[in-house]
Amino acid sequence: MYGYITFLTDFGQQDDFVGVCRGVMKGIARDVEIIDITHGIAPQAVTQGALLLARAVPYMPPGVHLAVVDPGVGGDRRAIAVRTDDERVYVGPDNGLLSLAADAGSVIAVRELTNPRYHLERVSRTFHARDVFAPVAAHLANGVAFGELGDEIDPATLVRIELPEPSVGSERLGATILAVDRFGNLQLNLTREHIASARLEPGRRVEILLAVDSYYAVIAETFAAASRGDLILYEDSYGAYAIAISGGDASKLTGAKPGDELGIVPVLT
Amino acid sequence: MYGYITFLTDFGQQDDFVGVCRGVMKGIARDVEIIDITHGIAPQAVTQGALLLARAVPYMPPGVHLAVVDPGVGGDRRAIAVRTDDERVYVGPDNGLLSLAADAGSVIAVRELTNPRYHLERVSRTFHARDVFAPVAAHLANGVAFGELGDEIDPATLVRIELPEPSVGSERLGATILAVDRFGNLQLNLTREHIASARLEPGRRVEILLAVDSYYAVIAETFAAASRGDLILYEDSYGAYAIAISGGDASKLTGAKPGDELGIVPVLT
Amino acid sequence: MYGYITFLTDFGQQDDFVGVCRGVMKGIARDVEIIDITHGIAPQAVTQGALLLARAVPYMPPGVHLAVVDPGVGGDRRAIAVRTDDERVYVGPDNGLLSLAADAGSVIAVRELTNPRYHLERVSRTFHARDVFAPVAAHLANGVAFGELGDEIDPATLVRIELPEPSVGSERLGATILAVDRFGNLQLNLTREHIASARLEPGRRVEILLAVDSYYAVIAETFAAASRGDLILYEDSYGAYAIAISGGDASKLTGAKPGDELGIVPVLT
Repeated sequence: MYGYITFLTDFGQQDDFVGVCRGVMKGIARDVEIIDITHGIAPQAVTQGALLLARAVPYMPPGVHLAVVDPGVGGDRRAIAVRTDDERVYVGPDNGLLSLAADAGSVIAVRELTNPRYHLERVSRTFHARDVFAPVAAHLANGVAFGELGDEIDPATLVRIELPEPSVGSERLGATILAVDRFGNLQLNLTREHIASARLEPGRRVEILLAVDSYYAVIAETFAAASRGDLILYEDSYGAYAIAISGGDASKLTGAKPGDELGIVPVLT
Repeated sequence: MYGYITFLTDFGQQDDFVGVCRGVMKGIARDVEIIDITHGIAPQAVTQGALLLARAVPYMPPGVHLAVVDPGVGGDRRAIAVRTDDERVYVGPDNGLLSLAADAGSVIAVRELTNPRYHLERVSRTFHARDVFAPVAAHLANGVAFGELGDEIDPATLVRIELPEPSVGSERLGATILAVDRFGNLQLNLTREHIASARLEPGRRVEILLAVDSYYAVIAETFAAASRGDLILYEDSYGAYAIAISGGDASKLTGAKPGDELGIVPVLT
Repeated sequence: MYGYITFLTDFGQQDDFVGVCRGVMKGIARDVEIIDITHGIAPQAVTQGALLLARAVPYMPPGVHLAVVDPGVGGDRRAIAVRTDDERVYVGPDNGLLSLAADAGSVIAVRELTNPRYHLERVSRTFHARDVFAPVAAHLANGVAFGELGDEIDPATLVRIELPEPSVGSERLGATILAVDRFGNLQLNLTREHIASARLEPGRRVEILLAVDSYYAVIAETFAAASRGDLILYEDSYGAYAIAISGGDASKLTGAKPGDELGIVPVLT
């Protein structure tokens, strides 16, 4: 029995896709509470979905974590449920979407969702969120045993997301933009350790080298530490480093987008 | 007594319109659960709203189905509640919005919402969702008798949506785009029967003739059956035929939008 | 104990920001119900947030009203909770966001959120919604005493929003656009009293003078009173005057946006 189903997709808010999945879940599990993490993942952006799921789950009460970004629906990708040792169960496609979140706990069992008893009676070829994943999540919430969902899968065979690695040189940090948020902040694949090993202490000025242009920025601890219009490189609230502009939109200013690479070079003073 | 109110509008997520209606409903019916179907119907797009409501309701638990896309608010369009024989009650404006969903059941009674006892004390001229429809939905959830809502209406007098009919010729299928979803898929007014009577079996190549350009597509059963970048014509998860592009956005590619007509012609091989 | 937390932010629906705050609140206060007012406030638009909060709250059941539009996060702006004599508590940053709503009741006590016991264990510098405001709102819902939240603050020291005042002349009304909604309607800083003192009765034609162009409009009581394509000046459902176009989008037509000033001049007939 689980009290919560969290829900993350790339379905957006324009159509009835999210609403229909909610209806299906509430029809099966009257008392479960559904917590929407987001439905704003860019269409078919599996890596972005995996990143957001992994950083959001630690703030969620234990429960079923339903996530669907599923460009391979109807093909031969597997539908899976993953159980971890922190009382969480992940439900979604086996395309890496669940991997970053699940690996934060320790995976103790995986099942392929092959048992039709826990799906809708008619399963379409293009909307497994409604027909397979949402019903399975709701049945799990109702107390159906994990082992009932279908065939056992070896966790080692799960598809995993490979995130790009930064390059840390003595004079240059090479990084990749993993995501851009609502405020235009550019999330990088850099942590405090990378910044420290490049000896970029707060207050230090750096040059950000993008494909076309370059920009000056300052290593800062808060937005408030920068003047309006300044670019800053700061540790965001999830512990990743990001580029922002005080009072503005760094993505619009620079034209940078997820997947872009950039260099960070200290400015000699 | 109803445990659920489902909620569909064209209000979007930018303003407080949806939130205020939620507040009104929860203030009247403490224990009802509100399931948002969508608030992303294009502004004043009554036909689109009617189509989404009709396809979503079968996945919703029985309850009150509140829907508001209401370009005629404040004019002489009637405010109505429609009761069907499958334990559902629809609440909204009498402009056709409810008609496709309600007609899927069998309409057994209709009332005009003329009893002010179940409205807010002050009824504005431009926001009946908040002042009339949401309170009525909440009072119904609380167990107010359907007959208390207002004057009886003859179901035959309800406004209905007229959907365009496809033309099925021996060498050409003429269809209309009814809706475009988040993924850019073009939903057509074609069902399996139309496709069968045009003898378009899976794997068959067709030409899609739009106003300006034409495109080749293949009749497919899943996205996965097509190569990346191929256009496909497939039966979507609600049983309507749609045009999609594998790994892309068919609406952006073709520039097609709701209301556009197109021709489908088999390619001789 | 409060049964409800209402929730308003500028976080949008693209990221996990809203979802993470929801998770934090439900993890602390299992039984509280969260009512989203909106998360569509323009990024960092404190005045727009304050206006929407003030007009939405009267339609909300009494409870905790959590609102976060917080460009000064991590700086020296205070985090506060405001208690009013109508059984409501407001939680958010002290930048004016709460002021229009709270002043509609009568403020009886204010606390700065200095007690870390009601925050998350690790408080980031850039996401106080998750780390401070949401946990405090949830603890209040659970029954934590208001006085436990932190140091007392003199209500007179709170930051307030200054709305622009209209100018009411004998031949010209000068107004400011406060907000633009989903439908493109332009909300003005004019009430029924301003319109009356300018003797603009229903049916009267006026000229709307914007920076570049001017437009004819008619004083109307409903959308339905105007012909398709006519501009109207009408009292909206919250009691403010607004400019709309029947069957269209006045913001797109005129290019007007929040903050723009305009003149309203009666047309001699």
